[in-house]
Order: sequence, then structure tokens, then C-alpha cells
Amino acid sequence: MYKVVLLRHGESEWNKLNLFTGWTDVDLSEKGIEEAKQAGKVLKQESFTFDIAFTSVLKRAIKTLNLALEELDLLWIPVIKNWRLNERHYGALQGLNKAETAEKYGNEKVKIWRRSYDVPPPALDENDERYPGKDPRYADLNKKDIPLTESLKLTVDRFLPYWFDTIAPTIKSGKKVIIAAHGNSLRALVKYLDNISEEEITELNIPTGIPLVYELDENLKPIKHYYLGDQEAINAAINAVAKQTEKK
Amino acid sequence: MYKVVLLRHGESEWNKLNLFTGWTDVDLSEKGIEEAKQAGKVLKQESFTFDIAFTSVLKRAIKTLNLALEELDLLWIPVIKNWRLNERHYGALQGLNKAETAEKYGNEKVKIWRRSYDVPPPALDENDERYPGKDPRYADLNKKDIPLTESLKLTVDRFLPYWFDTIAPTIKSGKKVIIAAHGNSLRALVKYLDNISEEEITELNIPTGIPLVYELDENLKPIKHYYLGDQEAINAAINAVAKQTEKK
Repeated sequence: MYKVVLLRHGESEWNKLNLFTGWTDVDLSEKGIEEAKQAGKVLKQESFTFDIAFTSVLKRAIKTLNLALEELDLLWIPVIKNWRLNERHYGALQGLNKAETAEKYGNEKVKIWRRSYDVPPPALDENDERYPGKDPRYADLNKKDIPLTESLKLTVDRFLPYWFDTIAPTIKSGKKVIIAAHGNSLRALVKYLDNISEEEITELNIPTGIPLVYELDENLKPIKHYYLGDQEAINAAINAVAKQTEKK
Repeated sequence: MYKVVLLRHGESEWNKLNLFTGWTDVDLSEKGIEEAKQAGKVLKQESFTFDIAFTSVLKRAIKTLNLALEELDLLWIPVIKNWRLNERHYGALQGLNKAETAEKYGNEKVKIWRRSYDVPPPALDENDERYPGKDPRYADLNKKDIPLTESLKLTVDRFLPYWFDTIAPTIKSGKKVIIAAHGNSLRALVKYLDNISEEEITELNIPTGIPLVYELDENLKPIKHYYLGDQEAINAAINAVAKQTEKK
């Protein structure tokens, strides 16, 4: 039996401002830093340890991981960063306010972009300064892999190869793995592991900064999963994610 | 022509307490944290950028690197941690006060252990709780590679294979490299690069938290080297290192 821990990054500066973030490399807020430390403390209390960590190339996930590893006294373990663990690319909505976007396009349209499985938001074009092809961290990607926008389906499609090629074999080799990533890349993994339908996955909310443990059998099929920490706080955090489209 | 940047970790809690540290995994002091950030700021001012970073498996070097990379907005680059970049192992002196050790054994003996090229301090035995073989981060090492004590010569001998096998080929591949490490592992590199004699290297002091730039030709032979930042502060820092055996 294997255990793998999923950790969504703590609150970012743009979560707080209610902006669509996607691949924008925004920092953790003060609250996000505290959430990350708290995640490390809970993992330590529960006697978790890790041999290797995977994260995205976005600082909110990397810093969440580093802060948690520091609490665990595991800064020395290998940390592998890969773009396939990035948040869903939010296309031309990146940088726009969620409530204002809802007002402009209508709640229904924004709900579709946020919560449909396979309808991507409006695409960037390659001249847009937000185009990932202009960022050196994506310089080694094949151009066909550089997104202009992504639905959750497209996020699943680019995340899963990394799971099959790299993370799953690492777990099967007996290494204890933590994955620090984003709401939608972690949803991609949860959808695959628990074989969740396209309809249901769009309603599943993973709270920030709360370690999510999956116990897996020898074929990496889930036996059970659970969040670590105070259950009342966890339920409040799950509900809070669903309310972000509401105008503040 | 290539450039590689060497960065000695900022002040640690034990530098401050004047204790022999070696492989003890002590944290940065507040001053050390500031030094690391300042190193990142200076590198940014001077328009340095990096494709990959190498560091030890000790948190004072890893955190120095992370703090500097954060200032450079380069947290996303690959960071490779390897025990061969660790500080010199200080054997049975680890955890002892430098001034008290000098009082007990005599200044001359301690000076020999600190500054001779090939006389190691008294060795640990394998039952000592400080023996690295008891630490999971060294679980994958061959037992013959796990030190009980090290002279600077032994540090050179275990550092250089990593330079030849991994770091040098990375530099030659065109990648811009930063190495965040320790006083003696960086001395090992500087000795090799500049072909410094055994006598001279023991008198060479590398200050903490100040980026040391080596410009290398196509065969990785040094063209020149220089510290980045305020030259007066740098000279003061170099002199401070030499005074640590004096009783406070």
C-alpha cells in the first residue's frame, strides 16, 4: 500500500484580489504563507515524511512546498518542478477580476468557463504579453504544448502524462511522494484516481493549504482519501472556494 | 566564455554561537537571511540570471539559495541538492565551541585542524549520534563515502568528482549555473579552478553571502574572478572569517 499527499498552494495575492490567475506567477499572501506553514505542521504532527516532492514552476506552489518542507525539516529532499503541474491556463481572462468578468459576460458564461469540463475561456494570441512562449521558463517546451487557454479537460490531458511517466513510477518504486500544486492540476489527478465523471469533477473543490492524503493499492487504485487537520475548518475552506464568483 | 557564480551561505545560528558546525544541519540566523536576500538583490542589480542551481543537502545553503532565487524571481529553475557540496565534516569537534576547543587543545592544535590542508580533526565513531550514517539524507551513500571526519584535502577529494561529473558538463552545455554551498566546499572548487597550493588555500577566506563570479574559458580555465557588491564591505567580511578562533 502507498500513500501520496496532495497539497494545494496557500492563498495567493490574486486569490485575495479575486482575479483570474492561471499561469500568472503571483506570490503567496501573508495568509497563504501561514497556510503553507500550517500544512507542514499538520503533516509533522501526523508523522508524515517524504523522499521526494513534485511541484509546478509557479512560485505560489513552490513556496508553499518549501515552507511545508521547512516545518517538516525536509528541505534536503529532491524537489522536481514541472510545468505540467501548473494551474489551468485561464487564457485571455488572466488578470481580470472574477466579479467584474461575471458582470461583463454574465454569471452563466463565467460559470461555464470556470466550471464546465471542456469549454475553455477566450484564448490569448501569441502577441499577448501573457503568452507563455515569451517566458524563459517555458523555452524548452514544444510549441504545440504551450497553451493559449485551457479547459479543465485540457489541463487533465497535459497533467496525466506526467503522472504516468514520472510520478506514478516514483510512487511504485517505494518513494514517499508529496505533490504541491494547484486547484485544477490537483483536480485533474483526483478525477483520474477516483474515476470521477466530467460533471462531478467541476463541482469538486480542493481547499488551499490542507494536506489531502490518498492511500493507494499496489496498482495505485485509491483505497481511501482524507484531509489532515480540523474537519470543521476543512469544510468551511471547501465551501469558501465555491463562492468566489459572487461579487464582493 | 562561461560565467559561474559561487555563493557561500549566510551566517548560521552556529556561526553566531562560534560552534564547529560541519554537517550539523543548523539554520540561518536573522543576519544570514538578510545576507542571502542581499546576495539575490546584488545579482539582480547586476543583471545575472541562471538556468540551474546546485546546492548541498544542508538547510543553511538551501535556504540561502532559495532566498536569493526569490529575489531574482527564479524560484522556478531546477535546484539540484547533493551531499558532495556539503561543508567539510568536522568530526568529533562538531557542536563544540571554537574558543573553548582552542583553550582545551591549545590554539596551535585547533589552528592545525582548522587551517592545515590534510590533518583531519578527531574522528567520530559510528555509534556517535552525529554519525551521518544515522541520517536518512545519507541513506543512499556507499558506506565508504560517509565521513567520520574530513580534512580540507578529503573535502576536495569528495567534491571534485561532482564538479567533473555533473557541474562542469552543465556549464559546458551553455547553462548558467549558480552554486550555493559552504566555506570549505567552495574553497575546494576555488583551489582546483585557480590551481592554488595546499599552503595558500588554507589562508583563503570566502565571505558569507557575497556572490563570487568566475569567468571561465572554453576549457573552464579561469579568466578572472570578482566579488559582487561594495568592495569595502567585502574586505571587512573576508577579514572577519579569520578571527573566529579568538576567544570572544
